[in-house]
Amino acid sequence: MIIELDLQSDIPIYTQLMDQIIEGIANGALQPGESLPSVRSLAADIGINLHTVNKAYTLLKQEGFIQVHRKKGVVVVDKNALPSTTEDYLSRVRKQLRPIAAEAICRGLSEEQLNEMIKQLYSDIQQKDRE
Amino acid sequence: MIIELDLQSDIPIYTQLMDQIIEGIANGALQPGESLPSVRSLAADIGINLHTVNKAYTLLKQEGFIQVHRKKGVVVVDKNALPSTTEDYLSRVRKQLRPIAAEAICRGLSEEQLNEMIKQLYSDIQQKDRE
Repeated sequence: MIIELDLQSDIPIYTQLMDQIIEGIANGALQPGESLPSVRSLAADIGINLHTVNKAYTLLKQEGFIQVHRKKGVVVVDKNALPSTTEDYLSRVRKQLRPIAAEAICRGLSEEQLNEMIKQLYSDIQQKDRE
Repeated sequence: MIIELDLQSDIPIYTQLMDQIIEGIANGALQPGESLPSVRSLAADIGINLHTVNKAYTLLKQEGFIQVHRKKGVVVVDKNALPSTTEDYLSRVRKQLRPIAAEAICRGLSEEQLNEMIKQLYSDIQQKDRE
Protein backbone atom coordinates (compact mmCIF):
# COMPACT_ATOMS: atom_id res chain seq x y z
CA MET A 1 0.00 0.00 0.00
CA ILE A 2 1.27 3.45 -0.88
CA ILE A 3 0.98 6.13 1.78
CA GLU A 4 0.56 9.66 0.42
CA LEU A 5 0.90 12.54 2.85
CA ASP A 6 0.20 16.19 2.19
CA LEU A 7 2.70 18.14 4.25
CA GLN A 8 1.04 21.44 3.26
CA SER A 9 -2.34 20.37 4.63
CA ASP A 10 -3.93 21.69 7.82
CA ILE A 11 -4.74 18.07 8.69
CA PRO A 12 -2.18 16.70 11.17
CA ILE A 13 0.15 14.07 9.69
CA TYR A 14 -0.87 11.43 12.26
CA THR A 15 -4.51 11.93 11.21
CA GLN A 16 -3.63 11.61 7.53
CA LEU A 17 -1.73 8.42 8.31
CA MET A 18 -4.66 6.98 10.30
CA ASP A 19 -7.07 7.94 7.50
CA GLN A 20 -4.99 6.15 4.90
CA ILE A 21 -4.61 3.00 6.97
CA ILE A 22 -8.36 2.95 7.62
CA GLU A 23 -9.03 3.47 3.91
CA GLY A 24 -6.58 0.63 3.19
CA ILE A 25 -8.63 -1.63 5.46
CA ALA A 26 -11.89 -0.41 3.87
CA ASN A 27 -10.73 -1.08 0.31
CA GLY A 28 -8.97 -4.35 1.03
CA ALA A 29 -5.42 -3.11 0.30
CA LEU A 30 -4.74 -4.09 3.93
CA GLN A 31 -6.13 -7.52 4.67
CA PRO A 32 -7.17 -8.82 8.10
CA GLY A 33 -4.13 -10.27 9.87
CA GLU A 34 -1.74 -8.44 7.53
CA SER A 35 1.37 -6.98 9.18
CA LEU A 36 2.02 -3.28 9.09
CA PRO A 37 5.60 -1.97 9.03
CA SER A 38 7.13 -1.26 12.43
CA VAL A 39 6.91 2.31 13.71
CA ARG A 40 10.59 2.76 13.02
CA SER A 41 10.56 1.44 9.48
CA LEU A 42 7.39 3.27 8.44
CA ALA A 43 8.76 6.54 9.85
CA ALA A 44 11.97 6.04 7.88
CA ASP A 45 10.14 5.01 4.68
CA ILE A 46 7.87 8.01 4.51
CA GLY A 47 10.34 10.43 6.10
CA ILE A 48 8.33 11.50 9.11
CA ASN A 49 8.94 11.55 12.84
CA LEU A 50 8.81 8.31 14.87
CA HIS A 51 6.40 9.92 17.33
CA THR A 52 3.97 10.79 14.55
CA VAL A 53 3.76 7.17 13.40
CA ASN A 54 3.58 6.04 17.01
CA LYS A 55 0.65 8.37 17.69
CA ALA A 56 -1.24 7.10 14.64
CA TYR A 57 -0.62 3.44 15.60
CA THR A 58 -1.57 4.05 19.23
CA LEU A 59 -4.87 5.66 18.25
CA LEU A 60 -5.62 2.96 15.67
CA LYS A 61 -4.98 0.35 18.39
CA GLN A 62 -7.22 2.22 20.83
CA GLU A 63 -10.00 2.35 18.26
CA GLY A 64 -9.53 -1.34 17.52
CA PHE A 65 -8.34 -1.31 13.89
CA ILE A 66 -4.92 -2.83 14.59
CA GLN A 67 -3.41 -4.92 17.34
CA VAL A 68 0.02 -6.07 18.43
CA HIS A 69 0.68 -9.71 17.59
CA ARG A 70 3.42 -11.47 19.54
CA LYS A 71 5.22 -12.70 16.44
CA LYS A 72 4.00 -10.60 13.53
CA GLY A 73 4.19 -7.22 15.25
CA VAL A 74 1.47 -4.72 14.35
CA VAL A 75 -1.34 -6.38 12.37
CA VAL A 76 -4.77 -5.44 11.02
CA VAL A 77 -7.47 -7.02 13.20
CA ASP A 78 -9.73 -9.79 11.92
CA LYS A 79 -12.76 -8.76 9.90
CA ASN A 80 -15.17 -9.78 12.68
CA ALA A 81 -13.07 -7.93 15.27
CA LEU A 82 -13.22 -4.58 13.45
CA PRO A 83 -14.80 -1.83 15.54
CA SER A 84 -18.51 -1.39 14.99
CA THR A 85 -20.97 1.49 15.00
CA THR A 86 -20.83 2.30 18.72
CA GLU A 87 -22.68 5.28 20.15
CA ASP A 88 -19.34 7.08 20.64
CA TYR A 89 -18.52 6.55 17.00
CA LEU A 90 -21.91 7.74 15.77
CA SER A 91 -21.68 10.83 17.90
CA ARG A 92 -18.19 11.53 16.53
CA VAL A 93 -19.40 11.16 12.92
CA ARG A 94 -22.29 13.52 13.61
CA LYS A 95 -19.76 16.07 14.93
CA GLN A 96 -17.60 15.63 11.84
CA LEU A 97 -20.55 15.98 9.47
CA ARG A 98 -22.15 18.98 11.19
CA PRO A 99 -19.81 21.73 9.87
CA ILE A 100 -19.85 20.08 6.44
CA ALA A 101 -23.67 20.21 6.41
CA ALA A 102 -23.72 23.81 7.70
CA GLU A 103 -21.37 25.02 4.97
CA ALA A 104 -23.31 23.04 2.36
CA ILE A 105 -26.51 24.82 3.45
CA CYS A 106 -24.84 28.25 3.17
CA ARG A 107 -23.54 27.45 -0.31
CA GLY A 108 -26.77 25.93 -1.53
CA LEU A 109 -25.52 22.34 -1.87
CA SER A 110 -28.56 20.14 -1.35
CA GLU A 111 -28.89 17.06 0.84
CA GLU A 112 -29.31 15.05 -2.35
CA GLN A 113 -26.06 16.36 -3.82
CA LEU A 114 -24.19 15.58 -0.59
CA ASN A 115 -25.75 12.12 -0.51
CA GLU A 116 -24.69 11.56 -4.10
CA MET A 117 -21.08 12.42 -3.12
CA ILE A 118 -21.22 9.86 -0.33
CA LYS A 119 -22.59 7.24 -2.68
CA GLN A 120 -19.75 7.97 -5.10
CA LEU A 121 -17.15 7.73 -2.31
CA TYR A 122 -18.48 4.38 -1.07
CA SER A 123 -18.24 3.08 -4.59
CA ASP A 124 -14.77 4.60 -5.25
CA ILE A 125 -13.30 3.26 -2.04
CA GLN A 126 -14.74 -0.22 -2.37
CA GLN A 127 -13.94 -0.41 -6.08
CA LYS A 128 -10.22 -0.05 -5.44
CA ASP A 129 -10.34 -3.54 -4.03
CA ARG A 130 -11.01 -4.96 -7.47
CA GLU A 131 -8.54 -2.91 -9.49
CA MET B 1 -25.26 34.03 18.99
CA ILE B 2 -23.41 31.95 21.56
CA ILE B 3 -19.99 30.65 20.60
CA GLU B 4 -19.04 27.35 22.25
CA LEU B 5 -15.45 26.19 21.95
CA ASP B 6 -14.03 22.85 23.00
CA LEU B 7 -10.51 23.54 24.19
CA GLN B 8 -9.87 19.78 24.64
CA SER B 9 -10.66 19.05 21.00
CA ASP B 10 -8.11 18.15 18.34
CA ILE B 11 -9.88 20.63 16.07
CA PRO B 12 -7.99 23.96 15.99
CA ILE B 13 -9.80 26.81 17.75
CA TYR B 14 -9.85 28.98 14.61
CA THR B 15 -11.57 26.14 12.74
CA GLN B 16 -14.15 25.71 15.52
CA LEU B 17 -14.80 29.44 15.41
CA MET B 18 -15.21 29.42 11.62
CA ASP B 19 -17.52 26.40 11.84
CA GLN B 20 -19.76 28.13 14.37
CA ILE B 21 -19.98 31.34 12.39
CA ILE B 22 -20.82 29.37 9.24
CA GLU B 23 -23.48 27.41 11.16
CA GLY B 24 -24.82 30.73 12.46
CA ILE B 25 -25.20 31.92 8.88
CA ALA B 26 -26.78 28.59 7.85
CA ASN B 27 -29.37 28.63 10.63
CA GLY B 28 -30.13 32.33 10.44
CA ALA B 29 -28.73 33.27 13.87
CA LEU B 30 -26.43 35.53 11.87
CA GLN B 31 -28.39 37.52 9.30
CA PRO B 32 -27.01 38.98 6.06
CA GLY B 33 -25.54 42.40 6.78
CA GLU B 34 -25.32 41.69 10.51
CA SER B 35 -22.19 42.95 12.25
CA LEU B 36 -19.83 40.56 13.97
CA PRO B 37 -17.87 41.69 17.02
CA SER B 38 -14.45 43.15 16.30
CA VAL B 39 -11.49 40.79 16.52
CA ARG B 40 -10.44 42.40 19.77
CA SER B 41 -13.83 42.22 21.47
CA LEU B 42 -14.59 38.66 20.36
CA ALA B 43 -11.17 37.50 21.55
CA ALA B 44 -11.79 39.14 24.93
CA ASP B 45 -15.37 37.79 25.18
CA ILE B 46 -14.50 34.17 24.59
CA GLY B 47 -11.07 34.35 26.20
CA ILE B 48 -8.92 33.34 23.26
CA ASN B 49 -5.96 34.83 21.48
CA LEU B 50 -6.43 37.83 19.13
CA HIS B 51 -4.52 36.01 16.40
CA THR B 52 -6.88 33.04 16.56
CA VAL B 53 -9.92 35.24 15.96
CA ASN B 54 -8.01 37.12 13.30
CA LYS B 55 -7.14 33.89 11.48
CA ALA B 56 -10.79 32.75 11.52
CA TYR B 57 -12.03 36.13 10.23
CA THR B 58 -9.35 36.29 7.55
CA LEU B 59 -10.25 32.84 6.24
CA LEU B 60 -13.99 33.58 6.38
CA LYS B 61 -13.32 36.75 4.40
CA GLN B 62 -11.21 34.84 1.86
CA GLU B 63 -13.97 32.29 1.43
CA GLY B 64 -16.53 35.05 1.04
CA PHE B 65 -18.75 34.57 4.11
CA ILE B 66 -17.96 37.94 5.70
CA GLN B 67 -16.66 41.26 4.47
CA VAL B 68 -15.38 44.47 5.95
CA HIS B 69 -17.90 47.30 5.79
CA ARG B 70 -16.59 50.84 6.06
CA LYS B 71 -18.97 51.79 8.84
CA LYS B 72 -20.27 48.60 10.37
CA GLY B 73 -16.94 46.77 10.54
CA VAL B 74 -17.06 43.01 9.93
CA VAL B 75 -20.46 41.96 8.53
CA VAL B 76 -22.06 38.82 7.14
CA VAL B 77 -22.33 39.09 3.34
CA ASP B 78 -25.68 39.40 1.58
CA LYS B 79 -27.58 36.20 0.90
CA ASN B 80 -27.00 36.44 -2.85
CA ALA B 81 -23.29 37.14 -2.30
CA LEU B 82 -22.70 33.98 -0.24
CA PRO B 83 -20.09 31.68 -1.78
CA SER B 84 -21.52 28.98 -4.01
CA THR B 85 -20.64 25.40 -4.89
CA THR B 86 -17.42 26.09 -6.78
CA GLU B 87 -15.24 23.23 -8.03
CA ASP B 88 -12.69 24.03 -5.32
CA TYR B 89 -15.37 23.74 -2.69
CA LEU B 90 -16.74 20.47 -4.05
CA SER B 91 -13.28 18.99 -4.18
CA ARG B 92 -12.66 20.07 -0.58
CA VAL B 93 -15.94 18.49 0.58
CA ARG B 94 -15.02 15.25 -1.18
CA LYS B 95 -11.69 15.28 0.69
CA GLN B 96 -13.46 15.89 4.00
CA LEU B 97 -15.99 13.12 3.39
CA ARG B 98 -13.53 10.53 2.14
CA PRO B 99 -12.06 9.43 5.53
CA ILE B 100 -15.55 9.53 7.03
CA ALA B 101 -16.81 7.18 4.31
CA ALA B 102 -13.77 4.89 4.66
CA GLU B 103 -14.23 4.51 8.41
CA ALA B 104 -17.97 3.99 7.93
CA ILE B 105 -17.25 1.14 5.50
CA CYS B 106 -14.85 -0.52 7.99
CA ARG B 107 -17.41 -0.26 10.78
CA GLY B 108 -20.31 -1.42 8.66
CA LEU B 109 -22.24 1.87 8.63
CA SER B 110 -24.20 1.86 5.40
CA GLU B 111 -24.53 4.65 2.83
CA GLU B 112 -28.18 4.88 3.81
CA GLN B 113 -27.37 5.36 7.50
CA LEU B 114 -24.80 8.06 6.68
CA ASN B 115 -27.30 9.78 4.38
CA GLU B 116 -29.92 9.62 7.12
CA MET B 117 -27.49 11.43 9.46
CA ILE B 118 -26.99 14.14 6.86
CA LYS B 119 -30.73 14.52 6.43
CA GLN B 120 -31.09 14.88 10.20
CA LEU B 121 -28.31 17.48 10.34
CA TYR B 122 -29.83 19.57 7.54
CA SER B 123 -33.09 19.55 9.41
CA ASP B 124 -31.48 20.26 12.84
CA ILE B 125 -29.41 23.16 11.55
CA GLN B 126 -32.22 24.77 9.57
CA GLN B 127 -34.77 24.21 12.33
CA LYS B 128 -32.82 26.36 14.76
CA ASP B 129 -33.88 29.31 12.67
CA ARG B 130 -37.47 28.87 13.74
CA GLU B 131 -36.90 28.16 17.43
